This record gives sequence, structure tokens and C-alpha cells, in this order.
Amino acid sequence: MGMPFEREKLIRFHHCDPAGIVFYPQYFVLFNELVEDWFNHGLQQNYADLVYQQRLGTPMVKLQTEFLSPSQIGETLRLSLAVKKIGRSSLELEVNGTAGGTARVRAQLTMVLANVDRRRSVPFSDDLRERIEAFVVP
Amino acid sequence: MGMPFEREKLIRFHHCDPAGIVFYPQYFVLFNELVEDWFNHGLQQNYADLVYQQRLGTPMVKLQTEFLSPSQIGETLRLSLAVKKIGRSSLELEVNGTAGGTARVRAQLTMVLANVDRRRSVPFSDDLRERIEAFVVP
Amino acid sequence: MGMPFEREKLIRFHHCDPAGIVFYPQYFVLFNELVEDWFNHGLQQNYADLVYQQRLGTPMVKLQTEFLSPSQIGETLRLSLAVKKIGRSSLELEVNGTAGGTARVRAQLTMVLANVDRRRSVPFSDDLRERIEAFVVP
Amino acid sequence: MGMPFEREKLIRFHHCDPAGIVFYPQYFVLFNELVEDWFNHGLQQNYADLVYQQRLGTPMVKLQTEFLSPSQIGETLRLSLAVKKIGRSSLELEVNGTAGGTARVRAQLTMVLANVDRRRSVPFSDDLRERIEAFVVP
Repeated sequence: MGMPFEREKLIRFHHCDPAGIVFYPQYFVLFNELVEDWFNHGLQQNYADLVYQQRLGTPMVKLQTEFLSPSQIGETLRLSLAVKKIGRSSLELEVNGTAGGTARVRAQLTMVLANVDRRRSVPFSDDLRERIEAFVVP
Repeated sequence: MGMPFEREKLIRFHHCDPAGIVFYPQYFVLFNELVEDWFNHGLQQNYADLVYQQRLGTPMVKLQTEFLSPSQIGETLRLSLAVKKIGRSSLELEVNGTAGGTARVRAQLTMVLANVDRRRSVPFSDDLRERIEAFVVP
Repeated sequence: MGMPFEREKLIRFHHCDPAGIVFYPQYFVLFNELVEDWFNHGLQQNYADLVYQQRLGTPMVKLQTEFLSPSQIGETLRLSLAVKKIGRSSLELEVNGTAGGTARVRAQLTMVLANVDRRRSVPFSDDLRERIEAFVVP
Repeated sequence: MGMPFEREKLIRFHHCDPAGIVFYPQYFVLFNELVEDWFNHGLQQNYADLVYQQRLGTPMVKLQTEFLSPSQIGETLRLSLAVKKIGRSSLELEVNGTAGGTARVRAQLTMVLANVDRRRSVPFSDDLRERIEAFVVP
């Protein structure tokens, strides 16, 4: 019975397109920040150490996303991340983004822990798996 | 019985991440280029005129993507776009990306024609709809 | 005798290139965040209101930058912004970025307050000019 | 008595900001493409091989840029690159961007050939230096 991990992100000028709203690939850049924040602060696993010392990464394998309503500069996007399923080396996450009380974006992300050099998946350590379980929200 | 629209995109240094492979949000930037190319060259509807003169855009509503294998700088990504369904003001597209004979990315995208200022969907003109139909691949 | 405006920015995975260091255009994205932060918190002028309500922007006119040493994911970049000169509608800024006690980037930026629609420069209001003066560091 | 290297770049939706014009950091992304194109086609040195096989890169050391007039989606930016000075392992380049007969951007860039792992400058080979000399425009 875990809890989602939450972070607020300010929508910046550089996230927005000529229509004045978030250019949709920028949501994925924000999701990537959210995953980094989750590792750093939720899982207590420094993401930079993961990349530079352990030569690991978390490439995306699959995603589904619904863009529910547009977001614009100056809004605060509240992102929540919940773990739906933990595999041997993969994770299914659900990310929800809301601002001003309305849903903006909802995504299911499947990512994998992988060695950067050999490009092979790597099982989660028991220790990391245990910390991930604190964010499982069925 | 239409045909897919195809374009080749060189994978650039700026698409790649510290793992040396395409950072996945950059695939969506490339898909956006593909849609622009399709309007400009496939549909004979200048995309810049659509945005600046007609005040229209093509925001993304929903997407599903599978990242099948990594791509790296210097590779040529062959992207194909096929129309799966045409609604009143929405389109379902399938995009496939291959390089060196292997599948890299596959996506289903639902986008909508919308007025940039009023943020409302706008029906396709008969003329544009007819040209879109040439790319329907069931 | 003003004081520089300061902000810390975490170097993210998405700022970095295949060499594992900040891709230099990303420094300018961070400078843009810094200018937004300065308007929002230093000048007490909401940047989003400037863009959406007043239809103003702050396009860059000229810049000089030295990249003094590389920055990598997980480092905290301390950015400082000082005003060097205030014109009728233009500003000369100096931005310095340091991390771990070493200088990383130094820039002189000339930007202008401009109307987004007419693309014409617009003089600073007396009120805004006064608040900018608090950040003049000769 | 060399000649500049030239390339045309279409201004894309994703290069533009809420003011409807190129967001200035995107010019540097385009300059980076230009340098890649120059290595690939002007210098006959595959840039991807340089990065992945020789473990070299071309980090930016210093730049000066003037943004002379705005560019918008659908315009074709004609970029030219001329070598101003060749050092042991550094290059001074001048880049000019024009569209529709008017100057848009002008930059002086100093970059260096460097080993990605050791982060040390590396002298140009005699062969590469000779090919670079064909683009020296005094």
C-alpha cells in the first residue's frame, strides 16, 4: 500500500510552442525530470551516480499518453508517479499531471534498468526493489 | 488503398543522450517534423500557412509508442506515416521508424485540427480530407 | 549599488550530450529560466502575465559566452545575473555559472523588451525600471 | 582562398516559441547540425565515427552572436560557415544565417577538438587540417 511520488514543475516559456501551449514532447522531458527526482528523493538512489558510476540508465520501452487539456507558461503542473508493476528489471509507472484542478496529461510508462555500455537489462538489486515497493499503488 | 508517406531523418548529435542513443522525447520532435513534411509535401498544404495564416494547429490528443531498439548518431531513420482513421477533425496515424533494416520505434498518434486562439477543434475541409485519404492504409 | 540575482539549477540527464556533459545550447535554455525567475521573483513582474496579458517578450539581441569548464548530470549550477546597463527598452546582463567552486560559464546578454505582435521594442515603465535598478552591479 | 560551406535549414514548428519566432537557443542547435554537415560533407570526416570510434568531440569554447532579425516557421534559413583561424586543436568559425534576402543571425564560434573521455584537447591530424584549410575565408 504505497503512496505516489509528487513534484511540481513550473511551465516555462521554453516548454511552449507558437500556439502558446506546452509542446507535447516537452511533457516527456518533464516526466524524465520527475523520474530523476523520484530516484534522487523518493528512492534515495542518486540518479547521476547510477549513470556515471554504475553505468546504468532507464530507457523507455513503451508508453501510452493522453493529453487531456493544454498547459501554458506560468502554470504549475503537479506531477504524480505511481508504480503499477515491478518486473525483474522493468517498471510500469503511471504519471498524472494536473494544474489548477484540471487533469492535463496521463501516461503509462514502461521503462527498464539497463547497462549503458552493453545495452542489456539489469535486474533491480533487492535493496532498490524494496524501496521501489513503497511507491506501488495498485 | 493509399500509400504511406515516407521521409528519412539523420540522427544528430543533439538527439542523443549520455547513453549515446536517441533521447526518447526527441523521437516525438522527429515525428513532428514528419507531420510537417507530410502537410508540406504529401498533402500540399503548407504547414506554416496553416499556423500563421489560418491560425490552426495539430495538437496531439493521444499516443502509444513502443521503442523497439536504440538509435544512435549517424544512423538514418526511415519514418513512414500511414492514416488509420479520419474523423471530422481528428486523425489516427501510425508511424514506423526503421534503420539499418531493424525496427526502432512504432507509434499510434491521434491528433486533431484545432484553432490556436479559441482552442477548439475545426473540421477538415472537403479538399483537405480528400488529400488525406490518399494516405489511408487499412 | 545593487546585488546580483541568484538561482541554483540542477543539471539534468536531458541537458547532457553523448560526451556526458551539458550540450551548450542547454545553457541558454537555463539562462532563459533564470531570466524568468528574475522577473517572477526579483522584479516582481510575473513573466507569464508579461507574455500572455501584455503581449510582451524579451528577445535576445546579442550575446557573448565563454564555456570555461564542462558540467555534468547531478551537479548544481549556481547562476548569478547582474544588470550592467539599462537602456530605454534594452538590458545588458552578465550571467555567471559556477559549480563545485569552479567557473563553468560566463555570458554577456543584451535583450530587449518587445511587443510580440508588432515585433517592436517597448520602453520599460518607470516602475519596472526602478525595480531593475536594484540589480545593477557596476 | 577557400569557400564557405553552405546548408539550408527549414525553420520548424519545434524551433519556435510562443512569440511565433525561433527561440534563440534553437539557432545553436541548428549551428550544431551545420558543423555536423560540414564534417560529413565538407571535410569528408564522418561525424558519428569521430564521436563513437575515435571518442572525439568538438565542444564550444567561446561564442559571440548577434540576432539581427527574427525567423519564423516555414522560412528557409541559409547558413554559411567559414573558417577564420585554425589553431593546433581549435577552430574559429564565422556562421551567417540569412533568409528571404535579409540577415538573421551572425556568430563567431571557437570550438576545440577534444577527447570525450579524458576531456583534453587533441591536435588536428595533418590530413584533417589540410581539408579544413579549404574553408578558410580571410
